[in-house]
Amino acid sequence: MHFSRFAAQLSNDAGIISLMEDLGSALGSDQKMYMLGGGNPSHIPEIEAYFRAQMLAIASDPAKFGAMVGDYDGPQGNEGFIRILADFFSELYGWPIAAENIAITNGSQSSFGLLFNTLAGETPQGDFTQVLLPLTPEYIGYADVGLGKQPLFTARKPIIEYIDDTFFKYHVDFKQIDIDDHIGAVCVSRPTNPTGNVITDDELKHLSELTKASNTPFIIDSAYGVPFPDMVFTDATPLWDEHHVLCFSLSKLGLPGVRTGIIVADAAIIERIRNANAIFSLAPGSVGPALVQHAIQSRKLIELCRDTLKPYYIRRRDEAIEQIRQQMHDLPVRIHQPEGAIFLWLWFEDLPISVQILYERLKERNVLVIAGHHFFPGLEENWQHKHECIRITYSSDSESVQRGIEIIAEEVRMAYDNQGS
Amino acid sequence: MHFSRFAAQLSNDAGIISLMEDLGSALGSDQKMYMLGGGNPSHIPEIEAYFRAQMLAIASDPAKFGAMVGDYDGPQGNEGFIRILADFFSELYGWPIAAENIAITNGSQSSFGLLFNTLAGETPQGDFTQVLLPLTPEYIGYADVGLGKQPLFTARKPIIEYIDDTFFKYHVDFKQIDIDDHIGAVCVSRPTNPTGNVITDDELKHLSELTKASNTPFIIDSAYGVPFPDMVFTDATPLWDEHHVLCFSLSKLGLPGVRTGIIVADAAIIERIRNANAIFSLAPGSVGPALVQHAIQSRKLIELCRDTLKPYYIRRRDEAIEQIRQQMHDLPVRIHQPEGAIFLWLWFEDLPISVQILYERLKERNVLVIAGHHFFPGLEENWQHKHECIRITYSSDSESVQRGIEIIAEEVRMAYDNQGS
Repeated sequence: MHFSRFAAQLSNDAGIISLMEDLGSALGSDQKMYMLGGGNPSHIPEIEAYFRAQMLAIASDPAKFGAMVGDYDGPQGNEGFIRILADFFSELYGWPIAAENIAITNGSQSSFGLLFNTLAGETPQGDFTQVLLPLTPEYIGYADVGLGKQPLFTARKPIIEYIDDTFFKYHVDFKQIDIDDHIGAVCVSRPTNPTGNVITDDELKHLSELTKASNTPFIIDSAYGVPFPDMVFTDATPLWDEHHVLCFSLSKLGLPGVRTGIIVADAAIIERIRNANAIFSLAPGSVGPALVQHAIQSRKLIELCRDTLKPYYIRRRDEAIEQIRQQMHDLPVRIHQPEGAIFLWLWFEDLPISVQILYERLKERNVLVIAGHHFFPGLEENWQHKHECIRITYSSDSESVQRGIEIIAEEVRMAYDNQGS
Repeated sequence: MHFSRFAAQLSNDAGIISLMEDLGSALGSDQKMYMLGGGNPSHIPEIEAYFRAQMLAIASDPAKFGAMVGDYDGPQGNEGFIRILADFFSELYGWPIAAENIAITNGSQSSFGLLFNTLAGETPQGDFTQVLLPLTPEYIGYADVGLGKQPLFTARKPIIEYIDDTFFKYHVDFKQIDIDDHIGAVCVSRPTNPTGNVITDDELKHLSELTKASNTPFIIDSAYGVPFPDMVFTDATPLWDEHHVLCFSLSKLGLPGVRTGIIVADAAIIERIRNANAIFSLAPGSVGPALVQHAIQSRKLIELCRDTLKPYYIRRRDEAIEQIRQQMHDLPVRIHQPEGAIFLWLWFEDLPISVQILYERLKERNVLVIAGHHFFPGLEENWQHKHECIRITYSSDSESVQRGIEIIAEEVRMAYDNQGS
């Protein structure tokens, strides 16, 4: 038995593999694990109760249940659901979005793989283009989806703004942004996974103008963004233009098990996604669309996110920050300005050990976090900063977050204390 | 905006795209369409009622519902479900299957894409291997999943056995089967999509021996096979060996909307599938496993398939054959021995038009079928037989099947009658 080059690329070293393995084994573990690693959303009782009622209504109706499980959707996704989404975006933002601009996928991760490989990589002429990540740190899950031999990403270091003694914020360094023929697409996550950064409206507009001028698709990964799940804790305006590619997901609504992603883009891009769905999946899953259809059609989803989900995560964020202040007051820790998503990005300046070692020590103590260096796909320079940051998730149960931060503080303190010894 | 070579390969010409488009648009169409094209399973009331009761039980229990929708499974699939499956196969067949031998995917189509590209294609050394399809016609969905530049498949013509005036059967032509270093994997669907053929136990054993001798993985696509959905209407023994790769699916149980595939294989292969799941999907969907878990654990699934699903499809098959006998008694039609799955494969010998033309004429009359030439991936020779066969599905509603066959008979009769005019 021999494995292909494609298989060889599916390396066990990929950050996303250890992340998802950590998630899965922790679920199956007998020991109490403090899950500050993965991106699993919280089980928010009011939200889960709402979707449970929707599922009960579907399962109580033979016709609705039969339609949900018993028919393949088209490869672009369920036609009725796509029409409802087109109305939703058009009405909410006044964008000229029609059914031809929307495709459903088996989750945002599938969206990224299909989009990046469709818009960049080897060209039909044998040239090669890359996806530019104008601001790293950026999402760990992008790193390994490239199907070709050459690195699919090229990335830029950010400008660091020191806000006060505790907080800092990354900004796009536009001096480094040059979108030439070698760039097939530009991508940002907003809010950013892993930092909780929300790139400013000005930065977004500037990137939109630069990409428009060079006729380059601009992918805005909105897995944590507006209008749903709306984990945005600052003012941030969503932006549409014909060359924008917006990626949405149902996962952070509390529905990662249904694996539903949504792409809004130019019809020519949607056509390729439809084809890829047919070839690699036949059709995307029908359960996610069936489960949220009513919430989107009735606009109830907006209300659930605004009145329940967002306040919930703001509270959880504030608790986590308070715990860090208490446990780490004596440590040189900085927190990225937490403007959205479900993460805190901690920077331990001049940490005497790499965060990979820290990750391993924490795992020994049943605390799962993610080491920062995984979040710089495409950044060639071995920037020391990458080895001084970790991502922690505050969507886990409160006890895990509280106890987890306590243990992180202990291990970090030990690392600083043992310095030079 | 420029598209990549990968995107260029996602050609609108792929048979699977038009098939899935036909399925999707027919669902959204105002006109009555006679759906004899796609592979959508029937809505069997007893089966659907059983799974609806399962979903009601899950949706009535906050903890179960939360676990189904609210957590990412591990990238290999839900650990509890995998253990249940390992027990199921071990107990049912006495196979030495453990959890490390099983991975869950987002449907069989995803399984095929991942397996074929993992086991064949460009090697790390720069060589190239192919997937051998020892018997075509073979499943349309395999054709376009290759990620490389070279054709991923190489295929062989069958031996045709004439059984009587109506029926015929394809057999593997072992004289043509040579598994050398250029073959990365061998694959058969059993029952075969599109023909309803069930390759014999002897043929299966022979292929197993040849692949074992050459240390080549042998993929047996059991989407319609035993032990579920058990759409096998002859005696056929499933076979396990360490180099076998068995692909199962929940779709033909009546659950295509949940997109769940199951791979049983050597642990080294499962590890690659797990990695690919993490990289391209994070995790497979959780709904399918949750929905069938009880049916598998209790062995109720065996009973449902044996006592309800299989008799249902045998009845539908016999009705379709009877309708063909009535409507086409004057036409030179032959039917492949219908030993399984949900299709009849019709051969119109010396048909004066290609079946592509026939497909188009039928679509004009709202009858969807699939032209035979799509089912010969990897067969280079332009065999006339490919253009004389069509696949029709008998899982559609009875009226569609009855009326559809009537219209097919009319169009085929016209084609023969206009011969030479």
